[in-house]
Amino acid sequence: MENKLFDLKAEQAERVYIKGALPGVEVGMKRVNLQNGETVLLYDTSGVYAEEGFETTVAEGIPKKRQAWIDERFEKDGEQHTQLWYARQGVVTPEMEYVAIRENQGAETETPITPEFVRKEIAEGRAIIPANYKHPEAEPMIIGRNFLVKVNANIGNSALGSSIDEEVEKALWAIKWGADTVMDLSTGADIHQTREAILRNVPVPVGTVPMYQALEKVNGNVERLSWEIFEETLIEQCEQGVDYFTIHAGILKRHVPLAVKRVTGIVSRGGSIMAKWMSIHNQENFLYTHFEDICRLLKKYDVAFSLGDGLRPGSIADANDAAQFGELETLGELAGIAWKHDVQVIIEGPGHVPMHKIKENMELQLEKCAGAPFYTLGPLVSDIGAGYDHITSAIGAAMIGWFGTAMLCYVTTKEHLSLPNKDDVREGVVTFKLAAHAADVAKGHPGAAYRDWQMSRARYDFRWQDQFNLSLDPARARKFHFDMIRDKGRDNEFCAMCGPNFCAMRITKSIEQ
Amino acid sequence: MENKLFDLKAEQAERVYIKGALPGVEVGMKRVNLQNGETVLLYDTSGVYAEEGFETTVAEGIPKKRQAWIDERFEKDGEQHTQLWYARQGVVTPEMEYVAIRENQGAETETPITPEFVRKEIAEGRAIIPANYKHPEAEPMIIGRNFLVKVNANIGNSALGSSIDEEVEKALWAIKWGADTVMDLSTGADIHQTREAILRNVPVPVGTVPMYQALEKVNGNVERLSWEIFEETLIEQCEQGVDYFTIHAGILKRHVPLAVKRVTGIVSRGGSIMAKWMSIHNQENFLYTHFEDICRLLKKYDVAFSLGDGLRPGSIADANDAAQFGELETLGELAGIAWKHDVQVIIEGPGHVPMHKIKENMELQLEKCAGAPFYTLGPLVSDIGAGYDHITSAIGAAMIGWFGTAMLCYVTTKEHLSLPNKDDVREGVVTFKLAAHAADVAKGHPGAAYRDWQMSRARYDFRWQDQFNLSLDPARARKFHFDMIRDKGRDNEFCAMCGPNFCAMRITKSIEQ
Repeated sequence: MENKLFDLKAEQAERVYIKGALPGVEVGMKRVNLQNGETVLLYDTSGVYAEEGFETTVAEGIPKKRQAWIDERFEKDGEQHTQLWYARQGVVTPEMEYVAIRENQGAETETPITPEFVRKEIAEGRAIIPANYKHPEAEPMIIGRNFLVKVNANIGNSALGSSIDEEVEKALWAIKWGADTVMDLSTGADIHQTREAILRNVPVPVGTVPMYQALEKVNGNVERLSWEIFEETLIEQCEQGVDYFTIHAGILKRHVPLAVKRVTGIVSRGGSIMAKWMSIHNQENFLYTHFEDICRLLKKYDVAFSLGDGLRPGSIADANDAAQFGELETLGELAGIAWKHDVQVIIEGPGHVPMHKIKENMELQLEKCAGAPFYTLGPLVSDIGAGYDHITSAIGAAMIGWFGTAMLCYVTTKEHLSLPNKDDVREGVVTFKLAAHAADVAKGHPGAAYRDWQMSRARYDFRWQDQFNLSLDPARARKFHFDMIRDKGRDNEFCAMCGPNFCAMRITKSIEQ
Repeated sequence: MENKLFDLKAEQAERVYIKGALPGVEVGMKRVNLQNGETVLLYDTSGVYAEEGFETTVAEGIPKKRQAWIDERFEKDGEQHTQLWYARQGVVTPEMEYVAIRENQGAETETPITPEFVRKEIAEGRAIIPANYKHPEAEPMIIGRNFLVKVNANIGNSALGSSIDEEVEKALWAIKWGADTVMDLSTGADIHQTREAILRNVPVPVGTVPMYQALEKVNGNVERLSWEIFEETLIEQCEQGVDYFTIHAGILKRHVPLAVKRVTGIVSRGGSIMAKWMSIHNQENFLYTHFEDICRLLKKYDVAFSLGDGLRPGSIADANDAAQFGELETLGELAGIAWKHDVQVIIEGPGHVPMHKIKENMELQLEKCAGAPFYTLGPLVSDIGAGYDHITSAIGAAMIGWFGTAMLCYVTTKEHLSLPNKDDVREGVVTFKLAAHAADVAKGHPGAAYRDWQMSRARYDFRWQDQFNLSLDPARARKFHFDMIRDKGRDNEFCAMCGPNFCAMRITKSIEQ
């Protein structure tokens, strides 16, 4: 199943494995073989699906590649520890070595990211490896501002419905285009079964917003929500293997009056639910009051916090206001508590923010949250992009990625209007991979600009196949080019844009000779 | 012809005319009538086409709305002067009053941009009104960093061919989506006739790269190019009514060795042609040596210079290099000469530039070119976006627009791969209008964020029609939303993304009450 989806051969590429020093560390990468004999090593999210001949079914799932490491640790220690705990003990785990090797894309000889560097970043809270030990199918990956910027794709059925197989297919489709994690935001029927199928079939970490399922358990009646129901839901999802939870523990009673008078109020579902609950019960947010209970639970499985920004601005008029920054301060306080429990944590961020207010978001987040990784939704730099909000948000995402955001949540063309279909997911993921890559280049991340350099050399040499294969969506690039060539019955020895007599690069080359 | 293309009724909008103080000044704007009885006044590029009942043919063209002003000035002065000349004399022309009124979009009561401010910006070289007096069909518009950021769309047939009617249709299509100017980059057959048809039928200024036609006149043989052939071409195009010329006068003999050793050499067609000519003849660029002759000619018609950056980087590896900045310095020198002759001037800019090198481009341009408006192609923030280069470039365009660039040349999804079709033109123009708008918002341009504010209020009130009509592509937004609603047989009282029970805004409102 789905194996044709990940056919690297069509891209003159292959899945290669690079061995680490620790037992069982074999890191899957995508090697593109260029027409001039050179190679480019690329980060690859496709996991075992890219191996030639691999087949499975949704029921069967994919191999549990991390299981041996997990078992061995348990045998040795008698209990599970988090990656943060190991990092603080000075231990480089196989997961840490794995991500170190994985981050070294570009030229094959360059390996600037070391396992020790990874350990140090995790120990200091600047990076996380989301890796619930009940989800051994996931390839280790790292989220932190001194690593490649990552992209999350949201999937999940809603009350408007879709099948379990469709959700797995949607997840794999997002991963094919480069999604580094997926969040299952299902709110409709079969939440448990959908999540189970996704977890057993995807090679990337999976995040959820447990509140959605807790609310389903009380039939959508916010008043009936309670810590007990939420805790039960958390345990269920921890046991299944969810790698990180969005938890809206930072929105407090004192923030609500600030938020309801905004132009667009509260636009986070989790945030609005907790605000409503606090308003009905006139009590403090139970996610806040029970935060240490949650820490103790997450620690057992090494589930990471993704502290939700329930008060993210839903319009540029609301950006950087007292409600948003008030909550951010609380999120920083909670990050400190999570770290005390050796629980890994990332912080969620906006939202709708005009360009001139983006930098302040990053700076305040670093300051208030002591360097915990930032994970933003966009930000969207205008409110009027309906139908083009993948672009409105990619502009802000590229900028905030450059400033230091570690992971970007994609936004699709259907944002504000409808739910994305397959084409929208592809367009959204590739758009955000582009934003993330632009950020990596601007940050000077080792190896990032190597791909651009190889692409540009291929362009100057008219190596068309290499240009397609080095792009983020080889199939689309190839199609655009050959549709034109085919229509016009021409060969491809010129760039189709200028025609053969007006090619600037061709003219330049004639000067050189 | 084409009237259905500009049907504002479908968007609950109308073309309104706002009278100025000077005779004959009636500024066309788009007024959107909201469901709550409020109105939003928007900048509108559609000209006479948006008037109810307007019809014409390609042969007939559109009314010459500026003709009376031009005739009156000629009667009074006995000769034509440039807008720069008038501005320096302290005269507010009808064109200046027109653009002042036009720039005041947003709330109808706010008019922060005054005719005197426009005059001052033009007098000081910080803005231009491209308005060849032989092109009276064009509505006056202004390009300058203290005004709304403008978008240019390139059209034109190539050796791969398309008909004259198709080119006019393509131009009007780009204008429908908001293109503020069009450049006719035709290089194939019927250059003169194509340009004539475009000029007589579009309500926006038209730019060209006269070198393309000059090269056609010598059958593509660069060696045979000469000042005489170029001058003859300029006169032909001035007489037809072209409003601004891209002229690659800044690339000099000493720059060529710097450029040929780059990763992607020279990627500007005009730049490569002049480099080749200099190399063959071992002479300085004749556009540079004859620059004052060109000034004297352009002055007669009030054609503006768009000083071409023949050495713009074609890869991020080449960005901000000695070749690029060497030419920029020459462009600044030439701007000073143009101003001496009262000729209006803008400066073209890159190209491929990673995010962290964008600001330097803007700062150096302002410094070297004494504040002349900057007009950039993107910049593209990575080289690997093939198939998505409208996005790679929109990221850079939004940023450089915020930093002070006055006009953005659009890039389509087909960049580097093929020529754009109608869908690509629409996607490209809307993407760049979004980037330009994001820049206007970030710059705090008066009235820009008003549209976002109205959009967000409409969103919070579930006024769906207002959301569609305030977006940049109402047809697309409407379609995305109703496709979903229709498929699911639901009403539109919720946002389709979250389903009725999970709408954060709905929950927030229930808190307020």
